[in-house]
Amino acid sequence: MAELVGNLLVAQSGGPTAVINASVAGVVQEAGRQECVEEIYAGLNGILGILNEELIDLNDEKARTIEGLKYTPAAALGTCRYKIDFNKKPEQAARDMDRLFEVFQAHNIRFFFYIGGNDSQDTANKIHHEAIKRGYEMRVIGVPKTIDNDLPHTDHCPGFGSVVKYNAATVMEIALDVGSMATDDGACCLIEVMGRGAGWIAAGTVIARRNENDAPHLILIPEIQLNEAAFLAKVRNVVEKLKYCVIVVGEGVKNEKGEEIAADKTQIDSFGHPVLSGAAENLGKLITQKLGLKTRTVKLGYAQRAAGHIASATDVQEASSCGAAAVRAAAAGQSGFMVKLVRQSSQPYRWTTDLHPLDEVANVEHLIPRDWFDEDGFLPNDKLVDYMRPLVEGDVKVPTEGGLPKYITLDKSPVEKKLAPRA
Amino acid sequence: MAELVGNLLVAQSGGPTAVINASVAGVVQEAGRQECVEEIYAGLNGILGILNEELIDLNDEKARTIEGLKYTPAAALGTCRYKIDFNKKPEQAARDMDRLFEVFQAHNIRFFFYIGGNDSQDTANKIHHEAIKRGYEMRVIGVPKTIDNDLPHTDHCPGFGSVVKYNAATVMEIALDVGSMATDDGACCLIEVMGRGAGWIAAGTVIARRNENDAPHLILIPEIQLNEAAFLAKVRNVVEKLKYCVIVVGEGVKNEKGEEIAADKTQIDSFGHPVLSGAAENLGKLITQKLGLKTRTVKLGYAQRAAGHIASATDVQEASSCGAAAVRAAAAGQSGFMVKLVRQSSQPYRWTTDLHPLDEVANVEHLIPRDWFDEDGFLPNDKLVDYMRPLVEGDVKVPTEGGLPKYITLDKSPVEKKLAPRA
Repeated sequence: MAELVGNLLVAQSGGPTAVINASVAGVVQEAGRQECVEEIYAGLNGILGILNEELIDLNDEKARTIEGLKYTPAAALGTCRYKIDFNKKPEQAARDMDRLFEVFQAHNIRFFFYIGGNDSQDTANKIHHEAIKRGYEMRVIGVPKTIDNDLPHTDHCPGFGSVVKYNAATVMEIALDVGSMATDDGACCLIEVMGRGAGWIAAGTVIARRNENDAPHLILIPEIQLNEAAFLAKVRNVVEKLKYCVIVVGEGVKNEKGEEIAADKTQIDSFGHPVLSGAAENLGKLITQKLGLKTRTVKLGYAQRAAGHIASATDVQEASSCGAAAVRAAAAGQSGFMVKLVRQSSQPYRWTTDLHPLDEVANVEHLIPRDWFDEDGFLPNDKLVDYMRPLVEGDVKVPTEGGLPKYITLDKSPVEKKLAPRA
Repeated sequence: MAELVGNLLVAQSGGPTAVINASVAGVVQEAGRQECVEEIYAGLNGILGILNEELIDLNDEKARTIEGLKYTPAAALGTCRYKIDFNKKPEQAARDMDRLFEVFQAHNIRFFFYIGGNDSQDTANKIHHEAIKRGYEMRVIGVPKTIDNDLPHTDHCPGFGSVVKYNAATVMEIALDVGSMATDDGACCLIEVMGRGAGWIAAGTVIARRNENDAPHLILIPEIQLNEAAFLAKVRNVVEKLKYCVIVVGEGVKNEKGEEIAADKTQIDSFGHPVLSGAAENLGKLITQKLGLKTRTVKLGYAQRAAGHIASATDVQEASSCGAAAVRAAAAGQSGFMVKLVRQSSQPYRWTTDLHPLDEVANVEHLIPRDWFDEDGFLPNDKLVDYMRPLVEGDVKVPTEGGLPKYITLDKSPVEKKLAPRA
């Protein structure tokens, strides 16, 4: 394959994570080692910023700032949920694609890296095929990112280990709190965590259990429909034994009809999914009503995916390595792949990166196998525990100022625009 | 005053905090240095455990375990919300008081330390006066504890610095997340924090603001009734300027009629207060309805007061010192006082402990002065910032195992019962 030389463009997409910036750091640091890469640009707010020709020059950032991305949560480049949708909006999608390639061409972008989840890998794949169709030589590699851990083919997703580390630590701390308040009247705390289709985030908190009586005492996931009677019986048993009960609720948990317990059909997100809220609230009310127990709810929301102060060092290292591996693959002439994490061993934990064709990634959702949960469906078994444990190992050192984290901000030196504004 | 020699009893009461165990450590470590103290006992679940003669022997715990209480959140002795209420339940209260003194006498308790907030200081004061009335020689000292920071006379309360440290870090991280998602359609995140009557916890998060555009952009506290129109105008302004807005909502925030925005009159806690939930939810719906903006809510709940993994080292040291000061005061013959924190200087931060008569503490609620907030009532000013900053300084080193905190548990070696069970 002929040597391709040109500029690099990296962008972030979808919901942020604690380590999505570590992947940018990996891209930039590896790009500095590759002679085929000239300028290192980033698109602001994902594909949306590229459409608007809002590019910044990452070579203008200090090396220490780029390194600081490894402990800084959320998307330092900005992100978006914009989708190029040839099915629902074919004309807009065609116009968007034309515009993207105008921008790529105007800035001689030859290496494009899109860091994101399912929808973003789909976008990367479309751009890859479009480049071939248009005869525009460009290497496109997807970098996996999603707290939900629902991308297929990769052992797990960067971002997942950190959200579980935070959530599991929170479960431990809340259990100490609720347990210390437990007197004979009993008390339940329901902790709602993210995960609409896949229950990995909820299930992962099982590692907070070091002993038989430890929390979480029940974990509810979207993959297993909730039998109300069995659920209430289980809660009653736990409270009879321990005087309290801590329940982790995946936001997408479903009732026996397969309906989301929290679905609020009045709010729809930009991908057309209903906005969820209140699974824990609804189940808490049920427990109070049917069992007469006091309940409290916690809804961690965005806090869980942004918790850089307790990120997993393993996760940071993997996220950064995925970024670096993407650049190496592109420099070696590959395109149309997603970087994936391959587990070689759980104990001791050993892993590496590899590539997987984007054609096989898009729109496939990786769910929890049923046999990774107990028969009654209320707790994961050792398969999930063994899978999960290594992913939260290691602490990240975050600099502080005045007792609070001191995260970095990019200078975001703009790249001069060469095109007329987007129509 | 004649030398009093006998056994010590310590107990914890009310809602746990990240540092209430540090006060127990302070009590135990100082007690070890006082010759007048023979046995070091603790009551399980506060006054409730004492009534049930459920005492444990803290001398049986390892020194390392006692030291470990300084980084372990929640109430290691267990806590309760039980109140000896001579107004509402005079007969029960009289029976309880008789029983308490039976237990004190049976175990030769001569030094009693109750760690708690307003209601608990009131209980300590009642026991102090009752001891005098009964001619039972015992020294009673209250140790302040409350995340709400609403105790009078003390500069601030142990527990407060840590909850604000966690909440402020969370605000910073959520702001990075929401800010990085902000595209032209705007987005608001409302973070609900604890504080029913006093807004200190909400207001304290102002220290997350290092620059003019930093979050939180609005802070709503119970002390300042919310003007809906002014609130919506302010949110609109922030979103027009920054494309996003982060709002910290004290759970007890009130509307212009003085009604709690979140009051759910169907649930009442054991002190007869309505259980609150949903101030942020309700305000989020209002913003979506009136301004057409996307909103998300976070409800930190128990997570915020139990977050030992990001406790303030200053807070831990002060909590421990309050426990030690209580023991020194009692050994010196004092009774009927609460230990208080006295600030000598904010920059550099210098403080000491002193005593305040319990008669002047009980049932007085320390609220935020109106002139510590901006005129429009949406952000604290420098008075609050200067007050708050030192209290979150310093990080606590928590041991970990498998990437998660490893908190201590007490052996809880029981003290042999000497009485018949409580009637």
